[in-house]
Amino acid sequence: MKNKKEVIAGLIIIGNEILSGRTQDTNTSTLSKWLNSLGIKVEEVRIIPDNEKIIISTVDEFKKKYNYVFTTGGIGPTHDDITASSISKALNLKYGPHKEAMSILEKYYKPGEFNEGRQKMAWMPQDADLILNPTSGAPGFNVNNVFCLPGVPSILKSMLGGISHKLVGGKPILSQTINLKTVESEIAKSLSNVQERNKDVDIGSYPFFRAGKLGVAIVLRSSDQNKINICNSEILSFVKEKNIEIVKEG
Amino acid sequence: MKNKKEVIAGLIIIGNEILSGRTQDTNTSTLSKWLNSLGIKVEEVRIIPDNEKIIISTVDEFKKKYNYVFTTGGIGPTHDDITASSISKALNLKYGPHKEAMSILEKYYKPGEFNEGRQKMAWMPQDADLILNPTSGAPGFNVNNVFCLPGVPSILKSMLGGISHKLVGGKPILSQTINLKTVESEIAKSLSNVQERNKDVDIGSYPFFRAGKLGVAIVLRSSDQNKINICNSEILSFVKEKNIEIVKEG
Repeated sequence: MKNKKEVIAGLIIIGNEILSGRTQDTNTSTLSKWLNSLGIKVEEVRIIPDNEKIIISTVDEFKKKYNYVFTTGGIGPTHDDITASSISKALNLKYGPHKEAMSILEKYYKPGEFNEGRQKMAWMPQDADLILNPTSGAPGFNVNNVFCLPGVPSILKSMLGGISHKLVGGKPILSQTINLKTVESEIAKSLSNVQERNKDVDIGSYPFFRAGKLGVAIVLRSSDQNKINICNSEILSFVKEKNIEIVKEG
Repeated sequence: MKNKKEVIAGLIIIGNEILSGRTQDTNTSTLSKWLNSLGIKVEEVRIIPDNEKIIISTVDEFKKKYNYVFTTGGIGPTHDDITASSISKALNLKYGPHKEAMSILEKYYKPGEFNEGRQKMAWMPQDADLILNPTSGAPGFNVNNVFCLPGVPSILKSMLGGISHKLVGGKPILSQTINLKTVESEIAKSLSNVQERNKDVDIGSYPFFRAGKLGVAIVLRSSDQNKINICNSEILSFVKEKNIEIVKEG
């Protein structure tokens, strides 16, 4: 763990469909924003295939390295959904039908419709805590600091509210953006000086192209609003000096 | 390296803005599709922060593990662009002004406009091969099996054509998709049997929600069209038996 005051997370995005480029991952952005709002910083994301050995070694590495680990994908009913069994192995827990999950899914489906495929969605590591799924029934699960969520973005989003109370974050990470009508090379040196003087603020510089106009978004990130304010003034000062136009966000 | 016949790549997406959720990465999907078309399979993607130590250790691990390594992001003119200097360290090469890159950028800018920030974009590992940039001048670079590209998606895309001839792929990976109006649990068992009988084809099952309708996309991937065809027939056979409707893509 990096810094005692900082609470950090690692995301493991599981799925051949992301690696092949067929599916555009959006869960990284959803999880990162949500975790930031709880004072948890995402330090690393790995996109890995539906491969037992790789899932096991990645979960094993991440659970030691980060305060919280989130996995997405691979907990459905088909043969390529191997996340729950792999994670059971990674955590040295028995993989089998989870009593509470079985009961939830039994009630969710009409009588006679709780078939073998659907029952597979109730198989997970022994004694895992369930993460309830208000959208489509099948729950995710949590063991120690590892949280396993589905890959379908709308379902994943609907399940986050049920986890927040389990996470203990640090100070929320605040951010402020200044959009300038300029190019990066015009401000590189001045910005570098501001960063030198304000080492505790993470200053990012990102060129943008909006409605045919070139610009640079400067993003200040810190858990301390005062430090952001100081950086902001220093930037506005060189922006004024250089006669650079500030662009309003729209 | 996994399998001698298979050519595999690892992608390293560098940037705090992706990890914070501010920017949605789309370069993974662009690079994966392009590499697939060249017969190269993306085996892993890591999204990491603008942190020298982490960049160095990730590049060091990937260059040994994969036939090709691609990095995106962090090669612009500002203080947070540390990819080129970090990769120089990872490869034990001197970091400094690259003669050819300096000459390209000097010509690209108007006289007097090739300032310090812009000159930084010509700093890279000694003797690197340049990856030309038809969009905005500043080149990427290539050393051995490591290819460094910018983070801005439109610029990255414009530079891929200049690399293809340097990559030696395996057999192109072919794919076929069958869209069914069903739910995964209805076909899970039959699909699992097809996978059992056709171990060389990667069969993925992905639920979708389009225009308010539920469905499942089955994706068959292999470098052998015959094997895909066999799988396809077996799937169409149980689909017919179960009276499941095939949905045309649209």
